[in-house]
Amino acid sequence: MSSLPLIAALSRGGALALGCALTTLPAFSRPQFAGDVAERAAAVEHLVDSALTSGQAYRMLTGLCTRAPHRLAGSTGAAAAVEWARQEMERLGFDKVRLEPCTVPHWERGEVAELTLLADGGGRALPILALGGSVATPAKGIEAEVIEVRDFEELRALGEAARGRIVFFNRPMDPAELDAFRAYGGAVDQRSRGAVEAAKAGALAAIVRSMTMRLDDFPHTGAMHYEEGVEQVPGVAVSTLGAERLSEQIARGGPVRVRLRLDCKTYPDAPSFNVVGELVGSEHPEQVLVVGGHLDAWDVGQGAHDDGAGCVQALEALRLIRAAGLKPRRTIRAVMFMNEENGLRGGSAYYAAHLEQMDQHVLALESDRGGFTPRGFTSDAGPEAMAVLREVAALLKPIGIADVFPGGGGVDISPMRASGVPQVGYLPDGQRYFDFHHSERDVLEAVHPRELQLGAAAMAALLYVVADLPETLPRNVPGTR
Amino acid sequence: MSSLPLIAALSRGGALALGCALTTLPAFSRPQFAGDVAERAAAVEHLVDSALTSGQAYRMLTGLCTRAPHRLAGSTGAAAAVEWARQEMERLGFDKVRLEPCTVPHWERGEVAELTLLADGGGRALPILALGGSVATPAKGIEAEVIEVRDFEELRALGEAARGRIVFFNRPMDPAELDAFRAYGGAVDQRSRGAVEAAKAGALAAIVRSMTMRLDDFPHTGAMHYEEGVEQVPGVAVSTLGAERLSEQIARGGPVRVRLRLDCKTYPDAPSFNVVGELVGSEHPEQVLVVGGHLDAWDVGQGAHDDGAGCVQALEALRLIRAAGLKPRRTIRAVMFMNEENGLRGGSAYYAAHLEQMDQHVLALESDRGGFTPRGFTSDAGPEAMAVLREVAALLKPIGIADVFPGGGGVDISPMRASGVPQVGYLPDGQRYFDFHHSERDVLEAVHPRELQLGAAAMAALLYVVADLPETLPRNVPGTR
Repeated sequence: MSSLPLIAALSRGGALALGCALTTLPAFSRPQFAGDVAERAAAVEHLVDSALTSGQAYRMLTGLCTRAPHRLAGSTGAAAAVEWARQEMERLGFDKVRLEPCTVPHWERGEVAELTLLADGGGRALPILALGGSVATPAKGIEAEVIEVRDFEELRALGEAARGRIVFFNRPMDPAELDAFRAYGGAVDQRSRGAVEAAKAGALAAIVRSMTMRLDDFPHTGAMHYEEGVEQVPGVAVSTLGAERLSEQIARGGPVRVRLRLDCKTYPDAPSFNVVGELVGSEHPEQVLVVGGHLDAWDVGQGAHDDGAGCVQALEALRLIRAAGLKPRRTIRAVMFMNEENGLRGGSAYYAAHLEQMDQHVLALESDRGGFTPRGFTSDAGPEAMAVLREVAALLKPIGIADVFPGGGGVDISPMRASGVPQVGYLPDGQRYFDFHHSERDVLEAVHPRELQLGAAAMAALLYVVADLPETLPRNVPGTR
Repeated sequence: MSSLPLIAALSRGGALALGCALTTLPAFSRPQFAGDVAERAAAVEHLVDSALTSGQAYRMLTGLCTRAPHRLAGSTGAAAAVEWARQEMERLGFDKVRLEPCTVPHWERGEVAELTLLADGGGRALPILALGGSVATPAKGIEAEVIEVRDFEELRALGEAARGRIVFFNRPMDPAELDAFRAYGGAVDQRSRGAVEAAKAGALAAIVRSMTMRLDDFPHTGAMHYEEGVEQVPGVAVSTLGAERLSEQIARGGPVRVRLRLDCKTYPDAPSFNVVGELVGSEHPEQVLVVGGHLDAWDVGQGAHDDGAGCVQALEALRLIRAAGLKPRRTIRAVMFMNEENGLRGGSAYYAAHLEQMDQHVLALESDRGGFTPRGFTSDAGPEAMAVLREVAALLKPIGIADVFPGGGGVDISPMRASGVPQVGYLPDGQRYFDFHHSERDVLEAVHPRELQLGAAAMAALLYVVADLPETLPRNVPGTR
C-alpha cells in the first residue's frame, strides 16, 4: 500500500459526501444479531480447516508473480495481470466475471538510474531508484553539491542555502514506533513531497532515504507528487546503507558533490481495468460485500506482498466459501483494483460506476498490508456494526486474530466511505512489511504459504458471516467517519 | 527445541518429585498483588522502548552464529559457544558470571551421509541427514528394499514383511493443525523411535520424512533414541521433496532398492558447562528468577532460531533491565543451558547443583520456540500466580502478547517443575519455525531483528515485574502440575 493516494482519496471521498445525498441513513435500531454470529461458528471452523489443508492462495500468487511480476498501471505487465485475474476468476467458477474500465497514468522508469558520489577523483555509485512519477534528468545528468536535512522545517530554515544544490532527506522511520505503518506514515512525506519542497527552495533534485528500518542496499521506490506552479525536479530513493554512506561523507565536512542521472518518462494516460467477479447472493443478490486488493504493483520485485498477497487472498476467500458449499444470503464481490500505487484511478472508477448501488454496498474489505501472519482487522464501522465484526473476530482467535481495531480499510475501497459503506482492513503482523515494500525484495519467496492462507481464511470467515446474517449490517453515517 | 528430552525430562521430574520433599508448600493465602503490576507499567513501557531503539539481541546473535555456528554438546563448537556466552556476560556487566559443570554425550555425524535410489541401472541421491545419535552403517553401506509406512501401527501390521528391509516412515506433519508445535508433536515419534521400531520388525535401518510442512530439499535432523535390548540400526531424515520422490517411486510398484551410507560415531561423554550470570536482587538476593535458553544446537545451519534466539533474548532481557537502571528486589539469573538437543544434561545438572536452593527459585522462564514475533507466554503456574502473569501480559498487548496460555515452560527448565517452580515459556508466532528447525536453513538471516527484540522486551518486562513485586509469586504444589 502507499499512504498518499489514501490521503487524496479521503479528501476526495469527503467532497463527494458533501456534494451528494446518495444513501439512505441507517436506522440504528439494534438488529437482532445475538446468536447469529455464533450460529455460523462451525462454518468458520470449516473455512479455516480447508484453508490449511487445501489452500490455493500461494499457487495463485505464484501465477501472478510469474506472469506479471512488474505491473505498474499502464504497462504491458499490468495488462497481463488483468488477463491473469480474469482467467483465474473464470477458472474458479466465479459469477459475472468482467472487466470494468478505468483510465490510468502511465509512467516508466526507463533504463538509467545512477547516483554517483564524486570524491577524490573517483566515482562511487549509491543504489537508487527513481520515485514513481519523477521527471528525468538531462541526459548528461545533474551535477551538484548535496545538502542533508531531516525534514521540511529544517529545509526551510536553510533559506537560500539549498539553491542550486540537491536536497538529501535523511530522516529514518522511527524505530520506537511499534506500528511500522505509523513509522512509515511519519517519514513518507519526504518521499511524496520531497521534490516539491526541494524545488521551492531552489534545489535541483531530491534524494530520499528509503522507507524501511532495514539497513541494506535495496532502494525502495514509491509515489511522489508535483505541485501546480512549482518546478518539477527529479526525485529518487537511495538505499538505507547508501544514505548512511552519503551522510558520513557529508559529516566529514567540505562539499560533497554527486551526479544524478535518470531517464524516466510520463506517457499519456492509458486505458486499463478493474477485474470483477462474484458469488451471487442466494436471498439478496443486490446487496454486495466488496473484497479487494490492488492488482497493480511497483515495477521492481514482484509485488508479492504489495499487493499480490491481498489479491490472491480475496480470490481465495471466495473460492473457500464456494468450495465449502456455503450459499450466503448476499453477494460477495471480489474486485482486483487497478492503479492504487500511483493514482487510485481503479478505486475511483469503481465508486463512480457503482454510485447508484452504493446504498446496497454492505461492507468493503481490503487486504493491503502484506501477506503476514494474522493479527486482526481494522474498521471504521459504527458501534453496532463494530460489535458484530468483533463477534466474528472472536471466532478467529485461534488463528491469531486478536480483535477489530479502530482504523481504515484500504486505499482502493476508501472512496466508498463517502457513501457510508463500512470499511474493514485485514491486519497482519507488520514487523517485516517494510523490509520488502516497493523494492526488489518483494518477491514470492518473501511470502509464507501458511501465513498467507491464514489471512485468506480470516477474510473468508468475516465475509461469509456478514454476507449470511439474517439482518444487514448497519451502515455508517455517510461522510462523517 | 526438541520434544523428546521434554518427555524424558517430565518423567524424570515426576520421579524426582515423588522421591523427595524438597520444598515448602506454598501458603496459598492471596497475596496483595492488586496494583503492584500496574505500578510497574511505566518501567515496562521503558523496557519496550529501549528494546526497539537500542537493542543488542541481533548483534549478540550475530556473534554466536559466527563464532560457534555448529555447537552440538561435546563438540569444539560447543566449547566455543560456552566461551562466547561467558565473555558476553562479562561484557554486559552481569554479576557472578561463572561456568557450572555438566557431563554431556558426544556424537558426531562424520563426513558421509548418502541415500541412493537404485533404479534403472543408475543411482539418484536423495538429501538426508543422520539423526542425532544414530549408529553408522558398514563402510560399504546398507543396500536393501524400502518399505513405506505411515506409523508404528502400520509397521507392526506388516508382520515379517519389514524383515531385511529399510523402513521409510512418511507421515507428514498435519497441516490441519493450527499449532505447528502440536503438528510436530504428532509426527516426531517417527524420528525419535523409528529406528527402534524398525529394528524390532527386523529391518536394517529407518528413513524418516523430515519434520517440516515445507516441501524442499533440506533434511531436518533431530534426536533419536535406542532401546536397551533392541538392535541399534541407523536412522536418517530425508528432505520432504526426497520423501515425495521416494514415495512416488514406491507407488509405481515393483521393489525399490536404496543404498544408505553413514559414518557417524558416538564418543565417550565429555565435560561441558552451563554458563550462568545474574543481576543480584536488591532486597532478596537469595530469591531467584531463572531465564534461559539452550546454548547447544544441531550441527547444521547456525542454530539461529533453535536456540540462539532464546539465548540472546535471555541475555538481552537482563541487559535491558540493567541499562534501564532498574534494581528489582529479587535476583534474575540467566542460564545458558548445555545439551538440550540430545540429553538435557545441562538442565539436569543445574537442577541437581541447586537442589537446596529450589525453594528460593521463584520462577523459571525459557525461550525455545524461535525468535519470531510475539504471541504470548505459556505457563503451568497455579491460579494465583497465573493471575499475576496475565496482568503482566496485559501490559504487553501493544507488542502482540495476547495472553498467558496454559502450557509448559521449556525443556531445560523442566526439571525444576518437580520442586514446584512455576514454568513460563515465551510464545512467538509458530508458523515459520519448522521451516528452519534442525536444518541448514536455521541461520542468522532467518531471524528478524525487531521480532527477536520484541521477544526480549516481553521477557524483560515479565522478569522485572515478577522480580520486583513486594510479595513473592505463589509456587506450584511440587510434582502435581
